[in-house]
Amino acid sequence: MPADLQPLFRPGRVAVIGASRGGGKLGAVMARSLAGYAGGVALVNARSADPAAGIHPSVAAAVAAEGPIDLAVFCVPAAVTAAGLAEAADAGVRAAVVCAGGFAEAGGPGLGHQADVEAVVAATGLRLLGPNTSGFFVPGRGLTASFVPGVERIPAGRVAVVAASGGVNHALSFQLAGSGVGISLGVGLGLGVGVGTADVLHHLATDPETAAVALHLETVVDGPGLLAAVTTLSAVKPVVALVVGRTDVGEFARSHTGALATSWKTTRAVLRQAGAVVVDDERALLDAVTGLSGRRLPPHPCPGLALVTGQAGPGLLVADAVASAGGRLPTLTDATQARLRDLLPPLTYQANPVDTGRPGPGFADVLATVAADPGVDLVAVYGLAEPDVVDLPAAAAQAGLPDVAPTVLGTGGLPADVQTVVRSATALDLPTVASPSALATATMALVQDAVARHRRQDPPTPRPRAWTRGPWDEDQAKTLLDDWGIATPPRMRCLDREQAETALDCVPGPVAVKILDAAVLHKTEIGGVHLGVRTAEELAAALDRLADIGAKQFLVEAMAPSGVDLVVGVRRDPVFGPVALVGLGGTAAEAYGDVAIRALPAGPAEIAAMVDDLQAAALLDGWRGGPVLDRGDLVTVVTALGDALLSAPDVAEIEINPLRLTVDGLIALDAVIVPVSPVPDDTDSPTIESEVDHAPAHH
Amino acid sequence: MPADLQPLFRPGRVAVIGASRGGGKLGAVMARSLAGYAGGVALVNARSADPAAGIHPSVAAAVAAEGPIDLAVFCVPAAVTAAGLAEAADAGVRAAVVCAGGFAEAGGPGLGHQADVEAVVAATGLRLLGPNTSGFFVPGRGLTASFVPGVERIPAGRVAVVAASGGVNHALSFQLAGSGVGISLGVGLGLGVGVGTADVLHHLATDPETAAVALHLETVVDGPGLLAAVTTLSAVKPVVALVVGRTDVGEFARSHTGALATSWKTTRAVLRQAGAVVVDDERALLDAVTGLSGRRLPPHPCPGLALVTGQAGPGLLVADAVASAGGRLPTLTDATQARLRDLLPPLTYQANPVDTGRPGPGFADVLATVAADPGVDLVAVYGLAEPDVVDLPAAAAQAGLPDVAPTVLGTGGLPADVQTVVRSATALDLPTVASPSALATATMALVQDAVARHRRQDPPTPRPRAWTRGPWDEDQAKTLLDDWGIATPPRMRCLDREQAETALDCVPGPVAVKILDAAVLHKTEIGGVHLGVRTAEELAAALDRLADIGAKQFLVEAMAPSGVDLVVGVRRDPVFGPVALVGLGGTAAEAYGDVAIRALPAGPAEIAAMVDDLQAAALLDGWRGGPVLDRGDLVTVVTALGDALLSAPDVAEIEINPLRLTVDGLIALDAVIVPVSPVPDDTDSPTIESEVDHAPAHH
Repeated sequence: MPADLQPLFRPGRVAVIGASRGGGKLGAVMARSLAGYAGGVALVNARSADPAAGIHPSVAAAVAAEGPIDLAVFCVPAAVTAAGLAEAADAGVRAAVVCAGGFAEAGGPGLGHQADVEAVVAATGLRLLGPNTSGFFVPGRGLTASFVPGVERIPAGRVAVVAASGGVNHALSFQLAGSGVGISLGVGLGLGVGVGTADVLHHLATDPETAAVALHLETVVDGPGLLAAVTTLSAVKPVVALVVGRTDVGEFARSHTGALATSWKTTRAVLRQAGAVVVDDERALLDAVTGLSGRRLPPHPCPGLALVTGQAGPGLLVADAVASAGGRLPTLTDATQARLRDLLPPLTYQANPVDTGRPGPGFADVLATVAADPGVDLVAVYGLAEPDVVDLPAAAAQAGLPDVAPTVLGTGGLPADVQTVVRSATALDLPTVASPSALATATMALVQDAVARHRRQDPPTPRPRAWTRGPWDEDQAKTLLDDWGIATPPRMRCLDREQAETALDCVPGPVAVKILDAAVLHKTEIGGVHLGVRTAEELAAALDRLADIGAKQFLVEAMAPSGVDLVVGVRRDPVFGPVALVGLGGTAAEAYGDVAIRALPAGPAEIAAMVDDLQAAALLDGWRGGPVLDRGDLVTVVTALGDALLSAPDVAEIEINPLRLTVDGLIALDAVIVPVSPVPDDTDSPTIESEVDHAPAHH
Repeated sequence: MPADLQPLFRPGRVAVIGASRGGGKLGAVMARSLAGYAGGVALVNARSADPAAGIHPSVAAAVAAEGPIDLAVFCVPAAVTAAGLAEAADAGVRAAVVCAGGFAEAGGPGLGHQADVEAVVAATGLRLLGPNTSGFFVPGRGLTASFVPGVERIPAGRVAVVAASGGVNHALSFQLAGSGVGISLGVGLGLGVGVGTADVLHHLATDPETAAVALHLETVVDGPGLLAAVTTLSAVKPVVALVVGRTDVGEFARSHTGALATSWKTTRAVLRQAGAVVVDDERALLDAVTGLSGRRLPPHPCPGLALVTGQAGPGLLVADAVASAGGRLPTLTDATQARLRDLLPPLTYQANPVDTGRPGPGFADVLATVAADPGVDLVAVYGLAEPDVVDLPAAAAQAGLPDVAPTVLGTGGLPADVQTVVRSATALDLPTVASPSALATATMALVQDAVARHRRQDPPTPRPRAWTRGPWDEDQAKTLLDDWGIATPPRMRCLDREQAETALDCVPGPVAVKILDAAVLHKTEIGGVHLGVRTAEELAAALDRLADIGAKQFLVEAMAPSGVDLVVGVRRDPVFGPVALVGLGGTAAEAYGDVAIRALPAGPAEIAAMVDDLQAAALLDGWRGGPVLDRGDLVTVVTALGDALLSAPDVAEIEINPLRLTVDGLIALDAVIVPVSPVPDDTDSPTIESEVDHAPAHH
């Protein structure tokens, strides 16, 4: 049950704790920032109270003098914060902002201060934002609980910014303000001791002022809670997410937030699965959320984008960027192209992209014609802002956009000219960005948002899977795979050499001869696997060598046809819980760190889409005459492993490596099941974690 | 010898051909754009001359009336352009701009119009810009030969924009103007019939107004000419390049430029080698050229970057982006950190990045302390624009920046506040950008520029290599490799079965037995290679099978130890001439399209750096206990192949596949030499071209 954040973000009266009337101290700056708030502002300062000047000695005194207070903004040092919070809660305050640093992120005595604050929050139910935040602002309500100058000039709008860091909240909100997009709520979470990212996202799901959300994450404490919040929110409003930590910024991040950076790839993958549009940098975050601040596409597996450009060169930049990001620019129908031929000079390209040459009076007709094409789901329009030559927003509106199809405008020019376009476009519900690459990013955000929602229409239906009792050697693990519907090679468990000799006659040859021992996780590395054994002599030699490494039992197994090797595993992510991983097998693929990740349970469409995440997906699609992956088969395997992991709380990890794609389909050539505990030797556990983060490790 | 472009970009009198006094036609708009030009403007219109109104019937008449004319701007249709150019040249005009489209890019009669124009240019030596361009502008001289409104408001500055497309020239120049960076020259090349990119770059090398160049390329016609121009220019001024065509935008591009898109990866690689900083999109182009518009770093193999930030969250974004791009943030010395401890609150991270907490009065001291660290070569500073709280440019100047170390500022805030920072920073020679990711891009541009110049201090010294007469079968090709100093396995050429049997005793076993036939390029695919042959029986079986596929001669060769396979080749690129390619071997690596490319000849440092271009470079550095590549060995191989190709004009391609990295070093396991002509079957030629463009092919 998410916390009700109305007292924080839609409070009645607000108090500033540690306030003063003049000067540059935090309490004075905050008092000035909040001064115009219509809900009323009370000032409190225990050390220099001045009731005549409206500065009360305590929250209780302020309540007595001015009436109930919902929100208290603390501008006092860390050491006295907990006591102040308790006093405020006693006086009926329901929410608080703590700006100071010096808590867990600073170590030392800060740890104690944080524990004290946590205790007060737990005891009182205060909705606490911070510590270590520059606050928040709700421009539409004239509520500026931030000490950064200029915030009061940020216009109200429909985009919410939810940032891990106060500095990033301000930087993003200023940029959105500057580019003509207003803010419904801007908040920096700081240490997140009380109110966390998930709480704010749940709040925004029902906030009528917010149409789209920009999310900045540095760390994730409660993975499942975050995913649930993003899932809930993205079902009703688009969410764009930026995750810090592509490289190992852990030490610096830790100093800032007091927490550890989580796995960047995993966080991005599961946020995308939960419905967020995941971007690479903060400008893409702004572009994407701007694009999504207008109309949203309905769920769609692969929307068709039409690009209409007034200048061919910038149009090429947009088309190149859109196609690089996987966007689809369908060729317009013959009928559409015939109509465009009547509207446009013969020199230009008209199949999509549509190059109008310099936009003229017929531009609206061109847009209407393109938008009416049956293959077009959304429209991107680029044109330089040329006052007195073309009015792009008016032409779009005249063409029935964005009602006919969601539309994003891109423009360029001197700032004043761009502003003119942005202002009139915004009034017409046409999101507008100011460069070709921004237009590509904004447009692709609409596409990705529609695709994510389409995949989620195909929900997971996990069902329990039967387990035998562990530990499991390779044969036992494969027998479980068989039970779960995953193909494995014909094989025989051999308790001694005689049985192995028999097996050589029974198992179709050539065969692999392996050590069978649940305690041995890396058979190949210790010489525990002999391939291509055909004759009794070769078998004897192989068994001799296995005996040398202490093998007591042997597996004699038919060798699979050649093919493309995958690695498929399920494991318990420390932050997000059960996840599935699919990657290409082999040393080279591992070096590329090319792996797709999903939180479990995942629906069939979501699992099938894992293939598209792989850089080397072409290898699975008949590369050089090789086999073609049936995605349904992969869904079967991943679903089975995922259901099995969800059915066995005492299992840490199941890995099939390799899972070979052959002309006969997928077949599991080796499998390992790792119990949660005790792990005999952590460094020896079989894992494709190393594939998850090719960059220096995150812990 | 590059064309002298003074008559084009620094003309005396300018004429507008097809001019009129009022209305919205091109000739009227252009006449108004040029009206204020101090060199004088003459108007010409053969069809509606009005000498009383200063509209002359011909260029000759205009010259007679007003004096000599250097530059004629043509605002007339394609069909009458060639005649007009000839007439202008006769009247002493030395340069021309042709705005109209309808030439080669339109096909049909346009091809003839273009041929006519080319003939006039060839006969007269006119410096022709266009056709199909919106022109150029030199704000510092008040020269606006562009019909786009607003251009006259672009301020003069030190950055030149050289764009393939007029629309991109305008979009980029407007953005640079809006972000406070002025323009020295903005030019869109259009079809490039006369003046090409290389001509403009040569011009800029000696243009005193230009400090840095932003280059936008759609196609490359004369590869070596472009590389020579970039090499010359980047030696004296930084060049940032954006290449269109990551995806197959060929058809649309063709409609726009009348030419084919070139290979994107090759173009980027060789431009980088020539000294350009190569970026991914047009905003990175602007960020990078902005960063490079201030001080340039001296050549350096790996500059150390210090990041000082006023807000931790945005600082994390910068640090993450810098590290992702390969930037190095060295830990500051103990002495520096000790001094910072005295200057900063104890809560913040100070090792580098340096988080100052909110910047205060001591900010200049922090910057001076960091810049003085012996490991710091350049400084990136981020801080929100907070009027009345901190003056970032003033603090930087007080700290002795950028004299102590090249510096880039990053800021954020409302546009007016950002503009205030940018203005004062620009006056202090401190390039400034307005977002964290822009700061990372701008800073890394300085780093990449310094690294590129450092690599070029190590120039190539190609020397002729000896050749035998071709065609060359595998043994003959490997004998050449031996001569050139490249290791190959012990082997024997066998003319019959008896020699092969002898070879089995002489060549250290196990051996590979292969068909030896210069006409067979893909031995493995046809069953022409048998590995791991140890016994006479196995040899006999292998020879039988080789005989079945028509083998007349055999190669018996020692098998190499296991290792990591590379593919190394040299070939003649259709646009850039001789190039070298290095990639990882094997199917998976091929699917990743992971290949490094250099134009030949290339110096040792340049070749050694090819390894860093590979995504999977870690595979060559002792991955999982494997062998470590000695880059000097790779330099030997690539230099030898490159010199050999340069020595043999009749050879199209030499490829070693695989070149195996073993514990004993690099050894060539197979080699193919392809003559230029005749190519027996083009589709069958051995090539790693397919690795060059993983995206849909460019032709």
